[in-house]
Amino acid sequence: MRILVTGGAGFIGSHLCERLLARGGQVWCVDNLRLGRRRNIAHLAELPAFRFIELDVLDRPALAALFDEAAFDAVFHLAANSDIAAGAGDFRLDLELNQLTTVTVLEAMRAHGVKRLFFASTSAIFGETDALLHEDYAPLEPISFYGASKLAAEAYVSVFAHTFGGRAVVLRFPNVIGERATHGVIYDFLRKLEADPGKLEVLGDGNQSKPYLYVGDLVEAVLTAWDKAEGPLGVYHAAGIGTTSVRDIAEIVVAAAGRRDTRIVYTGGDRGWPGDVPRFRYDSSRLQALGWQPQRHSTEAVRYAVERILANGF
Amino acid sequence: MRILVTGGAGFIGSHLCERLLARGGQVWCVDNLRLGRRRNIAHLAELPAFRFIELDVLDRPALAALFDEAAFDAVFHLAANSDIAAGAGDFRLDLELNQLTTVTVLEAMRAHGVKRLFFASTSAIFGETDALLHEDYAPLEPISFYGASKLAAEAYVSVFAHTFGGRAVVLRFPNVIGERATHGVIYDFLRKLEADPGKLEVLGDGNQSKPYLYVGDLVEAVLTAWDKAEGPLGVYHAAGIGTTSVRDIAEIVVAAAGRRDTRIVYTGGDRGWPGDVPRFRYDSSRLQALGWQPQRHSTEAVRYAVERILANGF
Repeated sequence: MRILVTGGAGFIGSHLCERLLARGGQVWCVDNLRLGRRRNIAHLAELPAFRFIELDVLDRPALAALFDEAAFDAVFHLAANSDIAAGAGDFRLDLELNQLTTVTVLEAMRAHGVKRLFFASTSAIFGETDALLHEDYAPLEPISFYGASKLAAEAYVSVFAHTFGGRAVVLRFPNVIGERATHGVIYDFLRKLEADPGKLEVLGDGNQSKPYLYVGDLVEAVLTAWDKAEGPLGVYHAAGIGTTSVRDIAEIVVAAAGRRDTRIVYTGGDRGWPGDVPRFRYDSSRLQALGWQPQRHSTEAVRYAVERILANGF
Repeated sequence: MRILVTGGAGFIGSHLCERLLARGGQVWCVDNLRLGRRRNIAHLAELPAFRFIELDVLDRPALAALFDEAAFDAVFHLAANSDIAAGAGDFRLDLELNQLTTVTVLEAMRAHGVKRLFFASTSAIFGETDALLHEDYAPLEPISFYGASKLAAEAYVSVFAHTFGGRAVVLRFPNVIGERATHGVIYDFLRKLEADPGKLEVLGDGNQSKPYLYVGDLVEAVLTAWDKAEGPLGVYHAAGIGTTSVRDIAEIVVAAAGRRDTRIVYTGGDRGWPGDVPRFRYDSSRLQALGWQPQRHSTEAVRYAVERILANGF
């Protein structure tokens, strides 16, 4: 299978490329290297089934030329601004990098008759609610441009699937953690401790609590949904077991990387930044019914990710 | 109250301007005259509380200058491509005219501290389902770019309301009919009969069946939602009573405007065009609980609209 992975040099994209190659796929990895890094895919560069192309998918002529040349069977669209806080004050950043990249990829797929799409979505489409989030939960009231732009992109994927004969799988990611991440709570803490090992400032009151999933388990979720989904549009949630508070993450990171006298200081308030969803819970039973099983409790995933990140460098 | 109505020279916008003026509002009506028409607002031009400005809301500097000058208290954002079929093959048309107009208006509101927004949305966000559509129905799987772009716009309105301190009312319109419409099934039929009174070609098999609402009743729904909604984001549905089939509309139009020997011919298939939702049913009970009552059965609304259109010219 000839597969395009957009955002393939990024955190999750690079792990996905590895697994697709291991399954015998031919992988065209494109990335504009905004968040992606060459070093994430350096170990794949010599494989004959792997090609890296530095390309911004918003560059429509370049993308069309690649589709012409490569005759893809499928597209895994992961290119995005994955840093929710970065887009918090800007109406256009997530719109362009999350939604318009998706629309551009869909246009190219339609023009070149490519039918099969995987789309990386997010829990942030739901906004703030205490409910257990199953796939058909409503209302969808995002509180961040990240969530709004991913919901918008899902809407276009729906049209592609239902009206243009596409076959799409949408997996809404939880907080995904592990080596090669470029941002997120664990990285923030590690970088702060590097700058000042005596003190760790935590945004919010530390009671924000979310499900965290190790990237390896997430990639298995992607492939399970891809292999087993039926119909034009399959929508799934994936989460680890349980949730972990930011306070617990701070203590785990300090225990692994801090000094014995590191003070943890909370800035206060119920969330890290405007648009941060302080708490959510995911129902992954639809994907579990297809055979996927999360391997770790959320807090074990955090411990494992911290260990892997420290071993790999950040 | 100093009110901006975008798309104010359009079909629904011009009716809304009338009612806002009648309630004592000061109305700035902006329209790029793509679908709007000067003649729709000609009867308002002499009123001291009414101003018309020919302006495309995608023109950000021009919009910012207007916000600077006018110090609005509220915005009713109706500017859109309301012609679903027109955007059927084009990934960008509805995206720009429905979503990006909304994002541009929200940016201007935020920059100028304007908090109160009315947004015109649509049943098309839901896609194709036989379910009775209440406001929190899911999944949302639009099948047209029109529906996708309005869902995307709703997502940005949600961020504006929940994260930037706005107060927004979203009313999802059904099929709205009446004088000054620029397109839609009644107009299509009248224009076809004008060209050939002997034959009326109907797209699809005629069994498409939807709720139709007369524009006067829709404007009352807008104002009820506006006056009574509470909280940062109020979402409502409005529909007339029951639904009307396209076959019945064809017969009503032929009886009113055709000849006794007009033949009605169906092109076949279950829908008018790709992306057309052939059937839907709306639950308006949330808005009715606020005091709004649809005045007519859907089919009576069709008869009344045909009468008004023939009296007003088209």
